[in-house]
Order: sequence, then C-alpha cells, then structure tokens
Amino acid sequence: MSTLSRRFFCRTVGAGISSLFFPLCTSQNKKKGKPNIIIIFCDDLGYGDLGVFGHPTIKTPNLDRMCAAGQKWTNFYVAASICTPSRAGLLTGRLPVRSGMCSDERGVLFPDSAGGLPENEITIAEMVKSRGYQTACIGKWHLGHLPQYLPTKNGFDYYYGIPYSNDMDRIVDMDWKEAAWHAKVEYYNVPIMRNETIIERPADQNTLTRRYTEEAVSFIKKAGNQPFFLYLAHSMPHIPLFRSEHFKDTSARGIYGDVVEELDWSVSRILQTLEEQGIAEDTLVVFTSDNGPWLTFKTHGGSAGLLREGKGTTYEGGMREPTIFYWPGTIQPGIVTGMGSTLDMFATIAAIVGAALPDDRIMDSENLLPVLKGEGKSPREVMFYYRGTHLYAVRKGAYKAHFTTELNYLPDNRREAHDPPLLFNIEQDPSEKYNIADQHPEIIAGIKKIVREHQAKLIKGKDQLAARIQ
Amino acid sequence: MSTLSRRFFCRTVGAGISSLFFPLCTSQNKKKGKPNIIIIFCDDLGYGDLGVFGHPTIKTPNLDRMCAAGQKWTNFYVAASICTPSRAGLLTGRLPVRSGMCSDERGVLFPDSAGGLPENEITIAEMVKSRGYQTACIGKWHLGHLPQYLPTKNGFDYYYGIPYSNDMDRIVDMDWKEAAWHAKVEYYNVPIMRNETIIERPADQNTLTRRYTEEAVSFIKKAGNQPFFLYLAHSMPHIPLFRSEHFKDTSARGIYGDVVEELDWSVSRILQTLEEQGIAEDTLVVFTSDNGPWLTFKTHGGSAGLLREGKGTTYEGGMREPTIFYWPGTIQPGIVTGMGSTLDMFATIAAIVGAALPDDRIMDSENLLPVLKGEGKSPREVMFYYRGTHLYAVRKGAYKAHFTTELNYLPDNRREAHDPPLLFNIEQDPSEKYNIADQHPEIIAGIKKIVREHQAKLIKGKDQLAARIQ
Repeated sequence: MSTLSRRFFCRTVGAGISSLFFPLCTSQNKKKGKPNIIIIFCDDLGYGDLGVFGHPTIKTPNLDRMCAAGQKWTNFYVAASICTPSRAGLLTGRLPVRSGMCSDERGVLFPDSAGGLPENEITIAEMVKSRGYQTACIGKWHLGHLPQYLPTKNGFDYYYGIPYSNDMDRIVDMDWKEAAWHAKVEYYNVPIMRNETIIERPADQNTLTRRYTEEAVSFIKKAGNQPFFLYLAHSMPHIPLFRSEHFKDTSARGIYGDVVEELDWSVSRILQTLEEQGIAEDTLVVFTSDNGPWLTFKTHGGSAGLLREGKGTTYEGGMREPTIFYWPGTIQPGIVTGMGSTLDMFATIAAIVGAALPDDRIMDSENLLPVLKGEGKSPREVMFYYRGTHLYAVRKGAYKAHFTTELNYLPDNRREAHDPPLLFNIEQDPSEKYNIADQHPEIIAGIKKIVREHQAKLIKGKDQLAARIQ
Repeated sequence: MSTLSRRFFCRTVGAGISSLFFPLCTSQNKKKGKPNIIIIFCDDLGYGDLGVFGHPTIKTPNLDRMCAAGQKWTNFYVAASICTPSRAGLLTGRLPVRSGMCSDERGVLFPDSAGGLPENEITIAEMVKSRGYQTACIGKWHLGHLPQYLPTKNGFDYYYGIPYSNDMDRIVDMDWKEAAWHAKVEYYNVPIMRNETIIERPADQNTLTRRYTEEAVSFIKKAGNQPFFLYLAHSMPHIPLFRSEHFKDTSARGIYGDVVEELDWSVSRILQTLEEQGIAEDTLVVFTSDNGPWLTFKTHGGSAGLLREGKGTTYEGGMREPTIFYWPGTIQPGIVTGMGSTLDMFATIAAIVGAALPDDRIMDSENLLPVLKGEGKSPREVMFYYRGTHLYAVRKGAYKAHFTTELNYLPDNRREAHDPPLLFNIEQDPSEKYNIADQHPEIIAGIKKIVREHQAKLIKGKDQLAARIQ
C-alpha cells in the first residue's frame, strides 16, 4: 500500500474543489481583512437531517455541495439544547448561565416574558460593528421582544423577522401539540417585525422561509463595499411546520422534508447571490442550528441520526448539530472531527475581523480560524452540557460524563442523578450506548476536577427568563 | 424564488463532477458493450458507517468522493440479514428461500456444513462468462467450502480468499464472543485458498484486507482486453476485527474505525488502478455490504445510523446498506432514494453485458441500469424481508408491514407475531418508530395481497445449510 499515493490522491481532489462546485468569479470588491460573515441558524434541525449527514430521504443537494467544498464539522455543539439559551450563547460567546439567559423555571422566553438579553452583554453584532461592519438579523430572535431587547438594541442595524418561536401566541382553543401538528397560520398570532415595528400579524408562516431568504438576498445585494455580518435565523424546521407553495408535498420525507428542502433552496440562493456579487471568496458562511430535533413531534420533528435523544436533553442528539463552514479560497475543504461550538463563533469572528475579546468577563469562546484554514487542530477540548442553570454533563476529549440525565423536555421530565457518572467514549460510541464508568475512574476524576474548576469561577447571572409582563 | 436558476445551479454542478474527482484518462481499450464489472462487498458494514452516510468519526474520504461522483443509493437492500443467504441472493438474483440457501435451523454455513450453492443455480459469474468475461472471486465466499461448491465451480476463473466467516474454525478454548473481541490470529484456524487449494492456515487475518486488495489490483492489471467481472468480498468489518499495521490505532472510532478506514483505502486502490489502466470509464464499480452491523459486538460492531436494529433482524438496520454505484461517463451522479437490492445486480449486469435472464426459473431481480444512466426511476417497488425461510416483513413503496419481528440473532431470540402487522411509512419514518397500522388498513390489505401472490408461486428450495460433514 502506498501512503504517498493515498495522500496525493486526497490532495489532488481537495485542490480546486470549490472552483468546481461554485465557479468563482474574480472578486470585484475584495475587502482585505474585512470579510463578510453570514451565520445561517436553523431551528430544531437534527444532526441526521441533511443528505450529507446521512438522511436517506431528505434531499439537500445544495448543502451537500456546500459541505464538499467547505468543512463538515461532525462534533459541533450548541450552548444549550433549547432555543433562548442556545441563541444567547451563540451571540455572546458565553455560557447562558453567565448571562442569566437560561432558567430552571421557564426554559425559554415566552410572549408574556418581560426579560431579554442584558444590556451589558456584548453580541457578535456589536463586536463587528466596532470594526466597521453593517449588520442584519433576519429571522427568529427570541432574546427578548420588548423594545429594549430587540436586535436593533443589540448591535444589528436591521431586523426583519419574528421575535420568538413560531408556535407561540397560539389563539386557537386546542392543545398546543395538536395545534402544532395541524399547522394552520390562523392558529397563531405571531408578529413579523421590521426593526422595531410590527408589520404583519399574524405572520403568514407559509412564506417565512422564502421571505427571510429574499430579505437576506436583498441585504447582501445592497451591502456595497462596506463589510457585513448577516445573522439569518430561520424559524424552520421548528413546529408548526410551514413551507411555501413550491415546496408543498415534494419530499418523500413528508412535510418535515419539504421544510428542510426549502431551507436547502434558501442556502443555494444565498451562495448564488454571493457569486453574483463577486464576493463568495470574501465571505464566511456558517450553517448550523440552535438545538437537536424535537422528537416529541414524531414525523414533524427531525432526526438526530445515530445520536441519542434530541432537543431538551444533554445527550448528543440534543446538542450536536450538522455544521458546515464555507469560505472558498480560504477554507481547507474536508471533514473536521475536532470539537467546536456555537460559543466559538464570537472568538472566531473576532479573529477574522481583527477585534479583541472583551477582557472584563469570562468568555467561553475559542478561535476556530486556524482550523478553518487547515493550519491547526481545534483548540476546544472541553464541552459543558447545561440544562437550565445546572451542569448535567461534561465532555473532555473523547470522554463524556453524565452527572445527571433527563429525558423529554416537557411535560414528563424524568431526571436521574448518576454517581459515579455515566461515562461514554463518544468518539468510539457516538450513540452513548456503552457506559464504561467502571473501567475509567481516572477519566472521571479528571472530569470532576474540570467541573470543580469551572464551578469555582462561575458566577450565575440573574435569571432573565423569569419576569413576566404585568 | 427561481426554480430555473435552482435547477441550473444543480446541473452546472452535476456536469463534469467525475472528471474532477478522478481525472479521467482517455480510455485506451474501450470495450464497446462489454464494460468491466466490480462488486465490492463488505461484511457486516452498517448503514451509518461511512462519512457520507453520516458517521461522525469514521473517515472515508475515498468512498465519500466515489459517492459524490457516482450514485448514492439510500434505500438499497440485501437479500437477507445474515451472511450465507445474503451472498446467495446477490450472486443468483433469487431470494435465498428459492435456492434453499437459508435455513431455520442454522442461519449460515459452518466449517462442518456439507452443503453449498446448488449446482443448478446460475451465478452472475456464470452469466457473464457466457458473454466472454473473465471472472474472479477475491475474499470471503461462504456458499460452500467443499470442492464442488467453491467459486471455481460457480463461474469464477480464479479464487483467492477464505471460504467462510473469519470467526469460524475457532481453536482457542474461550467463549466465542470473548475470543472475537480479543481478535488474535492464533485463535482461529481459518484457511486461505487459491482456487481449490489451501495455501495458508491459519490465515494471517491482519493482512486480509491488504492482500485481497493486492490480489484485486493484480487481477485488474492482468485483465488486458478481455472484459472482466471481479467480485471482491471483503472479510471485514466482520468480527474478529483485523487491520494491517499501517491502520492500527489511526481512527478516532477505535479498531472498528481502523478497519473501515482500511476498506476505504482499498477502494481508492481499486479506483486508482482503473484510472492507471485507462479503464475507469469502462468499469462499473458497486460498493455495498452483505447485511447490517452486528450490534451484539458493541464498539466492535458498526452503526446502522438512524435505522433501527442491525444484523440478523428484518428491521431496516439489518437489511439496508450504504451503497454506491460508480461509473464515470455513464452514470448520472446524484442521490437515488428509490429502492434497489443486491438481488437486482443479476438483471442489471445482464442488461449491461447483453445477456438474457434465465427463463426456466423465477427471478427476483430488477434491471437498475436505466436508473444508473439517469433515464428512469427504479423499477423495484416491493422488498421482501425474510428471516430464514419465513417472510417477516414486506415493503411496498413507502410502507413496510412487519408480520413478525425478532430481536438479536443469537442466542436470545425474541420473536413476536403482529396481527395486524406493524406498519411504518419508512420514507417519512426511516427509524421505524411510529406504527400507523390503525390508520391504513387499505395499505395492509394491499401488502397482504402481495404476500398471498408471492407465496402462491413460491416453491421453497431444499435446505442446503442443514447437512453436516459425517
């Protein structure tokens, strides 16, 4: 066997891949040192829901190609397994337990919530604005819908979207799960906002994905020579499921497949727009989701593939997401099995735009830029799995220790404490099937030390999700 | 949204993909109408064990690229969920219950078995020989190890490999599962044969994958202008797991990952050899496996990804395999979600080489060639899931009815009859989680009719696995 030829084979293939997939125009307005940043953030998309992540019937040819020409991250985590804390973690680079954007009482913000992301938190949008970027948030916000918490108060020049989840503001007299399953626009009174103004209520959810995409394309086209940060946070495939007419009944996977396939179309529109504007090489695009699939909703929820459990849990299925980084000409195409997290977007983007990290607070963010460029391994070695304000599990390298597990988010929680913790080698046993705690007391001791050190420095933020509008 | 531009985008990408991935030499010896055929058949590889089928830590860059340049089949089945009947189905294009190559007493052939594939069965090798092909079987046979049953008696000009499973002929005084886990060459007395002669015993299993590959490369290189059929049936990743020195401890997935990554290397050697010989465009290569992962062996067994259960069962995890068709210049690259089966290889290859199907017996084989060329949908609409001689489940279109289910192959079978059958829509519910029998009595009635028609014409072959050497 020839190792040399094997490597050569790989290298030959790696080189030039992006130019085939998305023929590159010569960049017309290359902004040295100030590339554009786009984060495409889905809602409740499962690890196993894309073709390239193994789904047999959902067709995602555009994401598959983006993946082949970019980096497929197979161990990429979110900051929490439910919506509000996950988004807070992404935008601040800090565990939500620090900002108070998680709660043991209410998991997320609701239409009657009075709180939101505290003013002293610094978002990616604020950070890049300090470096001259224009910024837009398009899609679901869910970090506070009162005026003082809106995207426009958190570093975004422009906002278009719904301020919380698309199953909130239910106005039909029907069980919430039943209503979500039937998915009728008139069951919900969710508003669409532009900047600080409600422009449509109830939102016509059928066209949400399409309209978010059109807004995003329009923002990119108008950007001109000023670098931009676009946070495109799709409402889908969160229940109730909606898709535009063109995607109705087109997927063998049923309505959930239709919805994901429209998201795949949306991604192709974004990438195509970058090509047309001649800025594909000047733009980092990241695709991921806020948490795992909502298994409660059966075929209206997604699949975590070979990972265990889904949304609301601290098993892998709840917190590991199908993640793609795309940046033709800069990124080293390939599969990255090292750990990464949405928490790392802050430090990574700071490195890209040349901003310093805040030095007045604990950050939980690692710079992944060297990995994107193929210049090094992921610096992330530890992953904390919080549920609300409680640390349930910790991963260090290949090993994950569960101190507490809990199945199903609502309504029938089954919480179980483990002493010794359950221990899985999740590189060898990604489905978390084989507890090896009794074989590795030294690994458990090492992880317990990490927990002690983490907790010694931890100051829990005041619960921002508890307060209700009077 | 522009459907037109979406389609254009896809087509642009589709075109020329193969020439990038494996730069094509001009074919030096194009054999009009007589392309070469290679079937690469793994052993116990799970649906979820390749990168492109969603495994997070097993790295299969060569299979991933083969897949991107070829067709990824996501609903491709084997004829049985264990070894001997699965192989009989592949090579004859007939359900093993017809040839008697399945049994309710012994699942597969053992070293003390006296039977094998009946002489009146026609193999793919015999069929293509009648069209002037040279033929080789390299690897595991498992259709009879007595002289009259060997590959050389079944249409193969050349044979190199082990005649049955690599965990047979155990000579260590140790529980079989324990022995398999520890995987030492000296625990087994498995022979390697060349044609009809044992040339090594015990086989040095560490180098099996490498030596099979070298034999295959050598056969391809010697082929000259006569078209060939190569059946490369790897012994791995069946337990006990072995890999050559170069692949030891290289995969994050542990020894199972090492083994699969050596198989990935093997594929690259085959494809590279085709390129070097200038015959890549003249050769159809099919990659699949005989049945799902042997979950009994925990981390030494594979993963069925999002599919339920594994080897030995008639759930999807037992019988659906990660399958890739590759034929640059002829195949239409893409993902095929229609049904296919190893049973269909006979009719597909017959169509390719211009042979007629036998008309003196019932065949269970469909011609997939139009699908490979992008000229039509899969003609396969029904899939029968047998366990031994009993029909446990039937899939018709998206719907699968389980009349009987049984977990774990050995030793603690748990058989359960279902009336009405369990009914799953496996396009929408690939993990077979949500029984919808009560919603679709008409679907069940339709499937029952298919069963009646099938059974009315079925003549069960005499059990070939029962007889033992005296």
